[in-house]
Amino acid sequence: MQIRRFYVPALDADDGTVLLPEGESQHALRVLRLAPGDRLRLLNGRGLVAEAELLPQPDGARHPRQALCRIVESTLQPRSSTALTLCVAPPRGKAFDLVLKAATELGFAIIRPVLCRFGVARLDGISPGDQETLVAALKQSENPYLPQLFAPKEFAEVLGELLQDGAAGIFGASPAAEATPHRPFSTAVARKVTAIWVGPEGGFAPEEEEALLSAGVIPVTIGDCTLRVETAVSALAGYLHGRRETPEEGA
Amino acid sequence: MQIRRFYVPALDADDGTVLLPEGESQHALRVLRLAPGDRLRLLNGRGLVAEAELLPQPDGARHPRQALCRIVESTLQPRSSTALTLCVAPPRGKAFDLVLKAATELGFAIIRPVLCRFGVARLDGISPGDQETLVAALKQSENPYLPQLFAPKEFAEVLGELLQDGAAGIFGASPAAEATPHRPFSTAVARKVTAIWVGPEGGFAPEEEEALLSAGVIPVTIGDCTLRVETAVSALAGYLHGRRETPEEGA
Repeated sequence: MQIRRFYVPALDADDGTVLLPEGESQHALRVLRLAPGDRLRLLNGRGLVAEAELLPQPDGARHPRQALCRIVESTLQPRSSTALTLCVAPPRGKAFDLVLKAATELGFAIIRPVLCRFGVARLDGISPGDQETLVAALKQSENPYLPQLFAPKEFAEVLGELLQDGAAGIFGASPAAEATPHRPFSTAVARKVTAIWVGPEGGFAPEEEEALLSAGVIPVTIGDCTLRVETAVSALAGYLHGRRETPEEGA
Repeated sequence: MQIRRFYVPALDADDGTVLLPEGESQHALRVLRLAPGDRLRLLNGRGLVAEAELLPQPDGARHPRQALCRIVESTLQPRSSTALTLCVAPPRGKAFDLVLKAATELGFAIIRPVLCRFGVARLDGISPGDQETLVAALKQSENPYLPQLFAPKEFAEVLGELLQDGAAGIFGASPAAEATPHRPFSTAVARKVTAIWVGPEGGFAPEEEEALLSAGVIPVTIGDCTLRVETAVSALAGYLHGRRETPEEGA
């Protein structure tokens, strides 16, 4: 059976025992009905992954509010050297959840919702539900690092901030965009990319595409069809992964 | 405003006028309330894309069962030379819809549901709903070719059939699979790939992975985390796209 995973943000490397947060405790004790001695895997979302064992509950209560665990072994996983920022025009409702899930599975370090002219969702902020989606995806995919979800900002503002960081990037260009032919770029350039830009399903507006090109962000087109935002996120992440590999250099 | 797209499987290149199928007619006339003279885009799912104009309905009925259109111009889009077969362990319920959508947007020519040992959905066949999902994705992504959705078959059977076709392939390998290190392969090999294999979220079973490797199907790992099936489909398609491009050969 697959070992159960729990998100324990307060977990530190030198903890000998730890109390699961209330929600996770309820899930462990009441939903999964785990018993003392059962194994759990704990993730703190900051790289620490711990194998733990459920202890008898100290107060003897039948329904303790927090489950006590003993840490058997813990490992600090290195952050991927290729951790990326995703700049994404949030799609409507449930589709944004799919974007958050995919970004977590694919190991994006930062998710920046970008308000684009053709964007359909005008998020005012990040909801608790968004954070829950990230945590659920973290546990499902066993990503040791919880992506940092930024508050939504206007396109120009995000681009300006990333340029200050010296971030190189690629963006998903519409297959119909004759003005931005897809030019091959070197593996060395691909390895320097730190941000992936995905526009709304209607694409980046002409002035947005112009701004990206002026900033040196490289247009990439996957296939001949219009991709939904969540498909484009995964396809572009996979594309970059592929472009970073060459038999010559990677062997 | 974006032009409205309709799926008209019976449309032929030499048609001067065409009746939309009933469902599409109802959508055009009653839901969208299109009027004579309005433009439509028609897709037959076999590469033909036609610009059309709604004609006055000949029988003068207020609610005709089928909308009559005049073809203004039609183009047969070439099939992508890189059209791929997707062999995929169907995930449960709605997640299979996401796989079908992504596969259509990404231009897969053939979708083969594969019954794997760790698979969670035991499909007996393809439902009308699955076909509707493909058609909706075809219209949304404006893919001129409707993917062909095969009936589900056992893993060994699908692999045997593809081997007879001489299909080269890649498969999504679990990041934990130490036994199958991801080896770089040449751009020439990437360009010969005609099939992408995506297992269930639990991964291919050891004997399945062994059979894929024996058949020369190449293991590919994207990132360090477990991907949901629909994420893996898009990421692997993007990966292959990236691996097929190199500045040296593609310039």
